[in-house]
Amino acid sequence: MFCLGIIGIFTLALSKLSAQHVFMERKEFIYEGKAKQVYSTEDPNKVIIFYKDDATAFNAQKRGTVQEKGIVNNKMTAILFKKLAQEGVPNHFIDQLSDREQLCHKVEIVPLEFVVRNVIAGSMAKRLGIEEGTVPPNQIIDICYKKDELGDPLINDDHAVALGAASYEDLKVMYAYTRTINDFLKAEFDKSGITLVDFKIEFGKDANGNILLADEISPDTCRLWDKETGKKMDKDRFRRDLGNVEEAYFEVLNRIS
Amino acid sequence: MFCLGIIGIFTLALSKLSAQHVFMERKEFIYEGKAKQVYSTEDPNKVIIFYKDDATAFNAQKRGTVQEKGIVNNKMTAILFKKLAQEGVPNHFIDQLSDREQLCHKVEIVPLEFVVRNVIAGSMAKRLGIEEGTVPPNQIIDICYKKDELGDPLINDDHAVALGAASYEDLKVMYAYTRTINDFLKAEFDKSGITLVDFKIEFGKDANGNILLADEISPDTCRLWDKETGKKMDKDRFRRDLGNVEEAYFEVLNRIS
Repeated sequence: MFCLGIIGIFTLALSKLSAQHVFMERKEFIYEGKAKQVYSTEDPNKVIIFYKDDATAFNAQKRGTVQEKGIVNNKMTAILFKKLAQEGVPNHFIDQLSDREQLCHKVEIVPLEFVVRNVIAGSMAKRLGIEEGTVPPNQIIDICYKKDELGDPLINDDHAVALGAASYEDLKVMYAYTRTINDFLKAEFDKSGITLVDFKIEFGKDANGNILLADEISPDTCRLWDKETGKKMDKDRFRRDLGNVEEAYFEVLNRIS
Repeated sequence: MFCLGIIGIFTLALSKLSAQHVFMERKEFIYEGKAKQVYSTEDPNKVIIFYKDDATAFNAQKRGTVQEKGIVNNKMTAILFKKLAQEGVPNHFIDQLSDREQLCHKVEIVPLEFVVRNVIAGSMAKRLGIEEGTVPPNQIIDICYKKDELGDPLINDDHAVALGAASYEDLKVMYAYTRTINDFLKAEFDKSGITLVDFKIEFGKDANGNILLADEISPDTCRLWDKETGKKMDKDRFRRDLGNVEEAYFEVLNRIS
């Protein structure tokens, strides 16, 4: 009786929490990015992130729409961020509220992109004259300064500190999380018959100064190649006008789910 | 008598060494760079480096001549490399043979440029949108991949290793030397009324695999501003057509000597 009572209270608390999230509503519009909108909620430390279908490439010089991309990216990020929390990577994700919305901890984004390259492709292949598809002998992590008007240039740790983007201590923490995330994602995609070629992640700081993985992990932010055929299953289909963009996004989600 | 004998032998050995160097002659032409030529000698582990007056800028898109630049740069490099050896930075310099020639240990150049930025100027100011003349709160060291056809791009340690340019262990050694060199040069120029804004250095590996500072340290490879007036006393006078290039080079040499 006593035990059941405790469990009852616990279940009630859980369902109340979940109900709270489901009914948590967007309040003020805060910010619109290239692929997402951010809204305040009644809790000053939580935001609702709305995933759009807008697609941009080449520093927003190419613009378009990928039908239902927002739904795929929201779902996929929800799945992966939940698992990453279990892997010891604290992140901003709290709950998926709807097809296109998720409740997240409010963070101030660190203006750096962390890019992991397991296979050489894209800008790095071009910049360093390396053939696309080359597997480097070591793990490569780039950091880029998030600044549209400068074209998000590649920088190093000293630049990040000089620019006030992060301290050396913060960088150390973010590099460590980045390595854990890569190990996890590589294995996760591999199980789904997908090669994780490269990906970019972003971090933010919450109200208490904790560093949390933020933004998203999706075919917008990863290069994903089918292990068998080498078929591109990511935003490169949009960037390079390869067609069947929507199908590729949904296939990745299906395999990961 | 005994003591004088010992000293006599020692003096004889020294003068013989010096005479050997003075009469060491260029044999085969090995390589021509933008500002120097390299010749073999009778010793397979030693080369003669000949300093030219040729000046290039913007990845050799701008070309010209700075009268007697080769004499200044040879002399200045000789002075600074000798002192750097005393500071614990092993380097390729052995002896100055003539106005334009120096005898050096033969090294295989590591295809990286190490750039130290004590004040923000040039390409970094442009790339990161920072005003020229800004003093960063931390010491900034860039590494660039020496590859003319790629425009010597900025890279990071992971890229350097992936490109086979250096191992992580070698990078650690070169960063440590770079910091020592910066501390020494900053103080040395400061005594001469000059602000060391930035500079680039190169390293090489000798026949035994030792990492040695190589190339040169001169107004071609340093940004040098007069402490009082801010007047540019370096290759920027050539790059930006500011005039009085030769005078500036000679003035730096006079102050440093």
